[in-house]
Amino acid sequence: MATNTLPRLEVCLSPALLHLYDTKGAVVVIIDVFRATSTIAAALHNGAKSVIPVAAVQECIELGSQIEDSITAGERDGKVAEGLQYGNSPSEYPKEFIDGKTLVLTTTNGTRLLHMVKDADIIITGSFLNLSAVCDFLIASGKNVLLGCAAWKDRFNLEDTLFAGAVVNRIKEHYTINCDSARAANYLYVHSAETSFIEFLKDSSHYKRLSAYGLASDMEYCATPDLHPVVPILKGRELVIYQ
Amino acid sequence: MATNTLPRLEVCLSPALLHLYDTKGAVVVIIDVFRATSTIAAALHNGAKSVIPVAAVQECIELGSQIEDSITAGERDGKVAEGLQYGNSPSEYPKEFIDGKTLVLTTTNGTRLLHMVKDADIIITGSFLNLSAVCDFLIASGKNVLLGCAAWKDRFNLEDTLFAGAVVNRIKEHYTINCDSARAANYLYVHSAETSFIEFLKDSSHYKRLSAYGLASDMEYCATPDLHPVVPILKGRELVIYQ
Repeated sequence: MATNTLPRLEVCLSPALLHLYDTKGAVVVIIDVFRATSTIAAALHNGAKSVIPVAAVQECIELGSQIEDSITAGERDGKVAEGLQYGNSPSEYPKEFIDGKTLVLTTTNGTRLLHMVKDADIIITGSFLNLSAVCDFLIASGKNVLLGCAAWKDRFNLEDTLFAGAVVNRIKEHYTINCDSARAANYLYVHSAETSFIEFLKDSSHYKRLSAYGLASDMEYCATPDLHPVVPILKGRELVIYQ
Repeated sequence: MATNTLPRLEVCLSPALLHLYDTKGAVVVIIDVFRATSTIAAALHNGAKSVIPVAAVQECIELGSQIEDSITAGERDGKVAEGLQYGNSPSEYPKEFIDGKTLVLTTTNGTRLLHMVKDADIIITGSFLNLSAVCDFLIASGKNVLLGCAAWKDRFNLEDTLFAGAVVNRIKEHYTINCDSARAANYLYVHSAETSFIEFLKDSSHYKRLSAYGLASDMEYCATPDLHPVVPILKGRELVIYQ
């Protein structure tokens, strides 16, 4: 196949830059490694019927009251938000707990980005927990790809960028890349792999914030590749396993 | 000095993210390596009385007609813009040509960012050509610092980020850094230094665009550290050498 017929692969480093990218007809991967998209992969792989991402705590409570067998979850400032039942840790959703249930999840950065993407053909979520599944899905789709980092309140963050870099590194031969963000993400990923991912991140803003909340083990979990090899795909308002 | 009394050092990767940073009372470094801030350093070091950065070609022509001994310069799509006299290459401004003159320069990305910064205490411009001078100035100022990458039409670019990383790498011991963009820029710079800066950039979007215009030698020039060791500082509408 000639290079110019390959689909396009780009990386958006912050929701505030999303308008620069043409997502029409593309697959958009929502990336919020710490911890929304990690929790989504874990919950679905462990049997959740679906995950409904919502922006506000109140909306989460209301949806939870309407949907049978639902769990409402979400954190603000590292604690379970008032009125919700559970937090935003992937380890809170083992099979014996989440199997068959609907998880209504409110997060700030990841959910916001997901709702901002308007005209993509397909929206999926990515994290290290489902890295290979996401890469396989993207290649098989044959579509243009935008890797969208949820970032932190619009600020660039290392963990989402490193995951984007891991994807770029794995699938770059299948795409045309004319995007410095993709190049930088790939370089950072390669550089981080020289030590260890979590060691590399220990100096990052989000790692410091979450470890101050006692969540270091959560981050180790989120950094484990392919523990939950599913592709969460958005159908209407729900994320379900792509099959 | 205790860590928490050190001033803050941050990196803004795109003008579209500028609103996330508090620049009040800070030094902002405008970075447009290919080629506005390189040309500014070269012109001032070679004797230009001042450089006036303007956004539009028409404004450039009008100012040029009002100011004695002025040169109007600027490019669009890699060619001297219609109505202007010279281009945006630092090599166009040797001492015998620019000495004593005012350079009215229109550029897209760098000028725009410079005009977007409203409340900084000090605005200077940075490039590899004046890397050490900029670093020395920042440390001596004792102020909070924002390194502002001009990017390319708001898209992240590698060359401006690498320069920001070079500055972070040199001066980080003097600052508190809680900014993943600064960390990433530093990592990318360290990684690029393992090969050579220009080799690293050869795969970047802007390098490809400019080399298609026959400007590869310009980029080699712009990548040379400390060839023009001056600090261009904004006074009113003019950039002059800080003394």
